[in-house]
Amino acid sequence: MIIVMKMGATQEEIESVITSIEAMGFAAHVSSGKERTIIGIIGNERPLTPDNFELLPGVERAMRVLHPFRLASRDFKPENTVIPLNGEKIGGHKVVLMAGPCAVESREQMREVAYAVKEAGVKILRGGAFKPRTSPYSFQGLGEKGLEILAEIKQEVGLAIVTEVMAPEQVPLVSRYADVLQIGTRNMQNYALLHAVGASGKPVILKRGMMATLEELLLSAEYILLTQSNAPVILCERGIRTYEDSTRYTLDINAVPVLKELTHLPIVVDPSHGTGRWQLVGAAARAAVAAGADGLLIEVHPWPERALSDGAQSLKPDKFARLVVELRRVAEAVDRSL
Amino acid sequence: MIIVMKMGATQEEIESVITSIEAMGFAAHVSSGKERTIIGIIGNERPLTPDNFELLPGVERAMRVLHPFRLASRDFKPENTVIPLNGEKIGGHKVVLMAGPCAVESREQMREVAYAVKEAGVKILRGGAFKPRTSPYSFQGLGEKGLEILAEIKQEVGLAIVTEVMAPEQVPLVSRYADVLQIGTRNMQNYALLHAVGASGKPVILKRGMMATLEELLLSAEYILLTQSNAPVILCERGIRTYEDSTRYTLDINAVPVLKELTHLPIVVDPSHGTGRWQLVGAAARAAVAAGADGLLIEVHPWPERALSDGAQSLKPDKFARLVVELRRVAEAVDRSL
Amino acid sequence: MIIVMKMGATQEEIESVITSIEAMGFAAHVSSGKERTIIGIIGNERPLTPDNFELLPGVERAMRVLHPFRLASRDFKPENTVIPLNGEKIGGHKVVLMAGPCAVESREQMREVAYAVKEAGVKILRGGAFKPRTSPYSFQGLGEKGLEILAEIKQEVGLAIVTEVMAPEQVPLVSRYADVLQIGTRNMQNYALLHAVGASGKPVILKRGMMATLEELLLSAEYILLTQSNAPVILCERGIRTYEDSTRYTLDINAVPVLKELTHLPIVVDPSHGTGRWQLVGAAARAAVAAGADGLLIEVHPWPERALSDGAQSLKPDKFARLVVELRRVAEAVDRSL
Amino acid sequence: MIIVMKMGATQEEIESVITSIEAMGFAAHVSSGKERTIIGIIGNERPLTPDNFELLPGVERAMRVLHPFRLASRDFKPENTVIPLNGEKIGGHKVVLMAGPCAVESREQMREVAYAVKEAGVKILRGGAFKPRTSPYSFQGLGEKGLEILAEIKQEVGLAIVTEVMAPEQVPLVSRYADVLQIGTRNMQNYALLHAVGASGKPVILKRGMMATLEELLLSAEYILLTQSNAPVILCERGIRTYEDSTRYTLDINAVPVLKELTHLPIVVDPSHGTGRWQLVGAAARAAVAAGADGLLIEVHPWPERALSDGAQSLKPDKFARLVVELRRVAEAVDRSL
Repeated sequence: MIIVMKMGATQEEIESVITSIEAMGFAAHVSSGKERTIIGIIGNERPLTPDNFELLPGVERAMRVLHPFRLASRDFKPENTVIPLNGEKIGGHKVVLMAGPCAVESREQMREVAYAVKEAGVKILRGGAFKPRTSPYSFQGLGEKGLEILAEIKQEVGLAIVTEVMAPEQVPLVSRYADVLQIGTRNMQNYALLHAVGASGKPVILKRGMMATLEELLLSAEYILLTQSNAPVILCERGIRTYEDSTRYTLDINAVPVLKELTHLPIVVDPSHGTGRWQLVGAAARAAVAAGADGLLIEVHPWPERALSDGAQSLKPDKFARLVVELRRVAEAVDRSL
Repeated sequence: MIIVMKMGATQEEIESVITSIEAMGFAAHVSSGKERTIIGIIGNERPLTPDNFELLPGVERAMRVLHPFRLASRDFKPENTVIPLNGEKIGGHKVVLMAGPCAVESREQMREVAYAVKEAGVKILRGGAFKPRTSPYSFQGLGEKGLEILAEIKQEVGLAIVTEVMAPEQVPLVSRYADVLQIGTRNMQNYALLHAVGASGKPVILKRGMMATLEELLLSAEYILLTQSNAPVILCERGIRTYEDSTRYTLDINAVPVLKELTHLPIVVDPSHGTGRWQLVGAAARAAVAAGADGLLIEVHPWPERALSDGAQSLKPDKFARLVVELRRVAEAVDRSL
Repeated sequence: MIIVMKMGATQEEIESVITSIEAMGFAAHVSSGKERTIIGIIGNERPLTPDNFELLPGVERAMRVLHPFRLASRDFKPENTVIPLNGEKIGGHKVVLMAGPCAVESREQMREVAYAVKEAGVKILRGGAFKPRTSPYSFQGLGEKGLEILAEIKQEVGLAIVTEVMAPEQVPLVSRYADVLQIGTRNMQNYALLHAVGASGKPVILKRGMMATLEELLLSAEYILLTQSNAPVILCERGIRTYEDSTRYTLDINAVPVLKELTHLPIVVDPSHGTGRWQLVGAAARAAVAAGADGLLIEVHPWPERALSDGAQSLKPDKFARLVVELRRVAEAVDRSL
Repeated sequence: MIIVMKMGATQEEIESVITSIEAMGFAAHVSSGKERTIIGIIGNERPLTPDNFELLPGVERAMRVLHPFRLASRDFKPENTVIPLNGEKIGGHKVVLMAGPCAVESREQMREVAYAVKEAGVKILRGGAFKPRTSPYSFQGLGEKGLEILAEIKQEVGLAIVTEVMAPEQVPLVSRYADVLQIGTRNMQNYALLHAVGASGKPVILKRGMMATLEELLLSAEYILLTQSNAPVILCERGIRTYEDSTRYTLDINAVPVLKELTHLPIVVDPSHGTGRWQLVGAAARAAVAAGADGLLIEVHPWPERALSDGAQSLKPDKFARLVVELRRVAEAVDRSL
């Protein structure tokens, strides 16, 4: 933390800031210039906030120097984290696909999707059994019955399973069935849940809150990493809320290179939520691969017009299969495989 | 739901839409004009989404007619909901103040604040024992010890207690100590938590998500009301996230009259989070009362520069006392008391 | 500007930064601590940007210390600017009302409104002759004929006239008819227009861009003030664009106290655009007065359902008259008159 | 426009709506169902707004059916508009690059850049002579002298020139030097300027307002197209303002496929402004090509650390040359050339 004193701050004010710093257990380093005095705090500034100092008399401004996250940062771990899953390596050279419907609706639906996405080369199946829905009148998911269907399909078709967990007390149950636990956008800052999934030892897909900054996303990852420092966390950009209303969300494509710079964790992109309309999913998915994403999470449904959630943004299996071929070409153009 | 068919939609397409509607258990009402056919759905449309229809061939657009919430709406209950608490009536003629520090830090701090706000006329004390913090390195609250301090102060000073609950499994514990349960902005769409507080029977302050629409806020209230239809829910506008960075959040003052129109539930405003700087709290608080808020939630701390959270937006007791006098005059100017 | 060097920056890098600063004609002040070196720039930093330094090797971060505006700042001129107009004093003790229709549509309409608002105590009439409309198919205003109508009504009823100017070449024409020139939200950063109105010598209402920060608003005011340093500029908060869609814009009530702190210029609020629905205008207007606004700009139309623009947010004269009575009470409650 | 009457609207209310419609010169088509009456307006609804009807008694809601733009729409002109320029075809099979510094600073700088980008295969040089700057204290461009430098370099190096025009009265001057006129983000809704560039006959790059919806962008294009219906307009996505602050703007990659669907006009992307940091430009540029952009506008500067504007987002020539090679591979992967 660097504290800039006001021009003309008194010696007394300067000393009072130093006293405050030392009372918090830190050392202060004072640089006195002709016009201004600047005070640096030596030690791990992460528990501090600029507020603590900006309220003191004579202080112009306090500013962080370090990123507020540590375990998630590239400074802490320069090399990419790679997470093995069902023969794939998330965060490795190959761009990894995860596909399936928004919600598990029936055995028939899941079987149909599972065989289709497997045929297209996918090894990780997504599908929600517990669904966080904005309206209490919307379909809330099949719950444990949905998990059982996922388990059966996994067994039969040979795919790894990603599914969402919505509350700490569901973590043991969902962990019995799932290979990867997903934290949805509305729960990115549900700290009790972050602790619970961190403790489970399972890989976690942490979706960016639709209103969260990238720094906040990394701080939520930090909560998981603090539970076990090599927890396998996968970050997911899934579109943010903006004023633009021609799409459901605005896919923040900049997030991919920014996160690659800041963190060693793998980054996947969800172009289905990021656009909200199946007609736009292909373009957004190609963009994500070109921007450097490590994987994609794509909604596929055999009968979108009958889907109980997110039909408008789901691809039919044949369209998805064609998209995979296109994505492979883009991946190769940026020296990746898919 | 009203479905507008494309110009030139075929009879077959129209019939296929009708078949879909009937398969969902609804009746269809067809209005055929010279240019277009419009199909209305008769029945409770809430479980449906426009998606279900916009993907069908020949459909131009589907649009909701009803608000997606019901129990929270003024149509369902035209008269204001009034919630009695420690001699106050939230949602009644008097504008109700709730004040206290962001976090419970110590017995001394809470006693100091409690006597000060009581002296200013406040009957409801706020203070967080469990704190949802963006960074895992920030102070996370005193937990159960914080609740015990609140209980002691409540006993000693005679104030009702509002405190936050962050996870479903904390609800029984927190309910033993608190008079009102607060759902924080990050948990507005934590549905397991909404169910748990709804089932507790305690009054709930539901803070608007920092990037939630008012419709989403009311749908979250609806989750609580569905658990028990006369659950005492108090809505709280606390600022939304926008691009403007001179304040911590943008207080959405429009939310007050919009919510008053849409719902019978009481609306309180948090000018401390809504601005993020104590210098602005007075103006925002006066504006909230003038706009018709039923109450205010204001952060007060005896020593803001030493606060473990939100120091920058906390008023000192003497400034708070002066503000109460100002607010009373504004309340009277809009035919309320305070 | 303060430049924070990276930990471990070399002496060569530090010297290269100093050389750059001096090459720009500034003096550098170096504070070398044990861990970091910090370099302050002495002189008027306003022409510089942090970019200039952050690209240099060894630099961690550069940060402005001064506000980028000067003439508009309270530091430059501590006392409020007060602008006399038709017997009113904008920026003085009394809250000043400006009212009228969005667009001048006909002599009958303007006469009807003018007498009505005058009767309610208003001395400044608004009405657009040149209308910036999002769609080229919308009514674009009556142009010069609209100005002539305004001139007639002004003469007949005795009100000062506020009207919008959209292009530099219109400034001489509009200045002949108007008492106050309005810069609309879409033109807040139309710099040629800012120069032209600044040179006209007329008072200017500068509306905040619907997605402009307050700093940007003050920088646009600075463009006008640089043309003539005591140009009578009135700032107008009129709602910003956010994700919330239940209102046309989100009225940023925080802007009032923030601007009062930063600048000596008067601040008025437009609750009609700030909400977009006449049902909400009263609450927003009361809030603006309670928050400390120096004036209000309110849309009034005798026949809103026939208005050629902004009908939905226009008050009928009788509702406006009742609102004025309410606003007067709120103004008195905050020690102002109206 | 479709007008949905309230349940229980009276026959009188219905007739009054019909009378209003007919008074505006349109025909009304009434569809009366058991529960509700719906009234369609026959004719070109573009001059109408839902406001006109929602204020009438008995009306629940009015909604547009048609897009508010016409000449810019794919319905009006299904095939892509292709604009020839210096041997390139903007909107054709090849992805077209435009590159150069933010601002023309000197002959040496422009010559250096011009040869460098030409060597990388670029045929269109960008560079601003008139610069719209947020702060009046920032470099405002060299003005006409900048245009003269552009003309010399154009002659010497053989590149077409894109440069910005900021005011209607500059259009004749700038048109003498430029091959393409650029409308900057702050002027997207400067209607006098849109008319002036439309009348010039020159190709226009219309940058999306940093706060504009895609519908508003197309309506601004419509203003130009109405001046001359086959005006060569190129749309430019350049990032929008959101709450995320780790990048200067949020590049809205979704805009590319949405615009491709809605309009026949070419779409180019500016990854320099869209990210604000040169380190991110490559990823964003690759994403734009993968998403289907027809061209890119990239800032290149020989000495970014000395740039008078936008240094932080400018690529050095060697980095730019390497990026072009990468972009070519991505273009080929999506069946385009570059």
